[in-house]
Amino acid sequence: LKNPNNITDIHINLIDRLKEGDRRAVARLITQVENQGQEITKKIIKEIYPLTGKATIVGITGPPGSGKSTLINQLSSKYLDIGMKVSIIAVDPSSPFSGGALLGDRIRMKDHSSNKNLFIRSMANRGKLGGLAIATKDVIHILDAYGSDIIIIETVGVGQSEIDIFKSAHTVIGIIPPGMGDEIQTIKAGIMEITDIFVINKMDHDGVDKIANQIEDMLNISDQFLNNNPYGKSNEKKLNKWRPSIVKTNALKGENIDELIININTHTAFLKNTNSFTQRLIYRYKFYILDILKNLMEKNIENVLFNNDEIEDFIRKKIELREGNDPYTISDLIIKKYLK
Amino acid sequence: LKNPNNITDIHINLIDRLKEGDRRAVARLITQVENQGQEITKKIIKEIYPLTGKATIVGITGPPGSGKSTLINQLSSKYLDIGMKVSIIAVDPSSPFSGGALLGDRIRMKDHSSNKNLFIRSMANRGKLGGLAIATKDVIHILDAYGSDIIIIETVGVGQSEIDIFKSAHTVIGIIPPGMGDEIQTIKAGIMEITDIFVINKMDHDGVDKIANQIEDMLNISDQFLNNNPYGKSNEKKLNKWRPSIVKTNALKGENIDELIININTHTAFLKNTNSFTQRLIYRYKFYILDILKNLMEKNIENVLFNNDEIEDFIRKKIELREGNDPYTISDLIIKKYLK
Repeated sequence: LKNPNNITDIHINLIDRLKEGDRRAVARLITQVENQGQEITKKIIKEIYPLTGKATIVGITGPPGSGKSTLINQLSSKYLDIGMKVSIIAVDPSSPFSGGALLGDRIRMKDHSSNKNLFIRSMANRGKLGGLAIATKDVIHILDAYGSDIIIIETVGVGQSEIDIFKSAHTVIGIIPPGMGDEIQTIKAGIMEITDIFVINKMDHDGVDKIANQIEDMLNISDQFLNNNPYGKSNEKKLNKWRPSIVKTNALKGENIDELIININTHTAFLKNTNSFTQRLIYRYKFYILDILKNLMEKNIENVLFNNDEIEDFIRKKIELREGNDPYTISDLIIKKYLK
Repeated sequence: LKNPNNITDIHINLIDRLKEGDRRAVARLITQVENQGQEITKKIIKEIYPLTGKATIVGITGPPGSGKSTLINQLSSKYLDIGMKVSIIAVDPSSPFSGGALLGDRIRMKDHSSNKNLFIRSMANRGKLGGLAIATKDVIHILDAYGSDIIIIETVGVGQSEIDIFKSAHTVIGIIPPGMGDEIQTIKAGIMEITDIFVINKMDHDGVDKIANQIEDMLNISDQFLNNNPYGKSNEKKLNKWRPSIVKTNALKGENIDELIININTHTAFLKNTNSFTQRLIYRYKFYILDILKNLMEKNIENVLFNNDEIEDFIRKKIELREGNDPYTISDLIIKKYLK
């Protein structure tokens, strides 16, 4: 590519092929968005944006061993069977979708690998976590424009970055496996508050009812878990609360997957029948915009501090004359002089 | 505190007591810097800044079980014995300095707890990692102003945040324990490149010479590990390179601690005899300033996006009229309209 900041005929061609449903073009566009700078990404997203807004975005989280990937496999089968287009974004590096799991798991996943309605992408090896949230949002848009009916994002649910990713989802599913000690603790703080559907997987194990009761108790006691608009204005917070539902499944045997799908549909209907859908959309975009702006600002500040001889000399002089030139004062001076 | 943005008589009094060597005032000032906003921190740092610049700052990293805390305990003993004032900042949550280790370890550390020349502070529970790098730099300045001769920062060395912390150190020590499989791998990428002294602890174990050879090989092959000025101008990069030294110790028995101290002194002398000392100082402050500026910008952007009704309406309208108003375009508009 001669001019790395310009969208080229190659990109336009890839976007045209994406519109026609070419899976290889989708993969290549995602690679572009992952590896090229923000200027290229911006132009690609701008081009495809009018095609987006149709996919249902589902985030699924759970600790390793909770049956997350098996459940996603079962869900995908059901959706594919009724002719829906399914895309999976795997952020969990230990997921078979990321190529990180046992051979047996990987073989099991292959049932669908030849299905042209299924698209799987691993984003588990995306170096910096800071860039992951924004890249995931870009990729969601590409998969939406491509015509996915449902986009499933799989994470282990640890860290702020994964919570940020889930702010892109319409419905967040938290999987709790029984028999892991203090089960409720396996869903991490932060994820808990944004979970719409709790799935107790491995329903044939002991203690399933106890976990369900624990979750119900938690929902009864604490109002905070019923708040799905953490950034809404205070008067909006009180309205239209979704009480998270609880579904027991056995992903390995494919039991109760239909019930899970009904719960996902019920939640989607709830969002659309209240004003929650638009609200969520706006919050989603606010966080997307927040990521974009932070990224731009950080690049700008780094550029000013590390690639500018005048500032280099400015800081050097300030540091050498120690008195009165502490880093906070210098920062204020740099803002006034170089960042306004 | 009536006005949370103003430095108060209480702060001035704490700073006066810090100047007199009052350890409790130091602890209280650190709490202020950790818990109050940037405005208060800025004023405290500005007040104490003229007193700083005297301490030697040593970063020590190593995986859990490498004997990091035991080594720090031994080093501290030696420094305390010759009348030096020692401060320890523990970022590793599993460290006995953070109160997170086995009882036996904690008892062993208590040897010095009554020594008024020793100050220990845990920063392991500082919520957000993003804020950790900047808070550590603030705390280093307070401990420097307090009159510490040596400030030791202990981390596990995982993640960008800890690498950022180490950009504050004069000398970075990386501990490699033998008998943990692929030992070199226990020092993480990123930390490796900024290590000045490799310590092979538990020198009585098998395989110590093999590890030393591996490190020597690595240093011989790769020029990048000899680059201690990753952000220097290209022509400066070639000059004054420090070849990381290797020291074998047995922290538990206190063996070769003197040799480690000689190596730290040699490295400090190297920095001072070349222009590296000033260069490092400037890079340190650049990263400090970078953190301060990023923090300010992020707060500013979050404030604009989440506490401004006009922007709320602006984004809402843009999102509702889908065509042509992708998040990147909206971000550009917000920059032009609200962030210039």
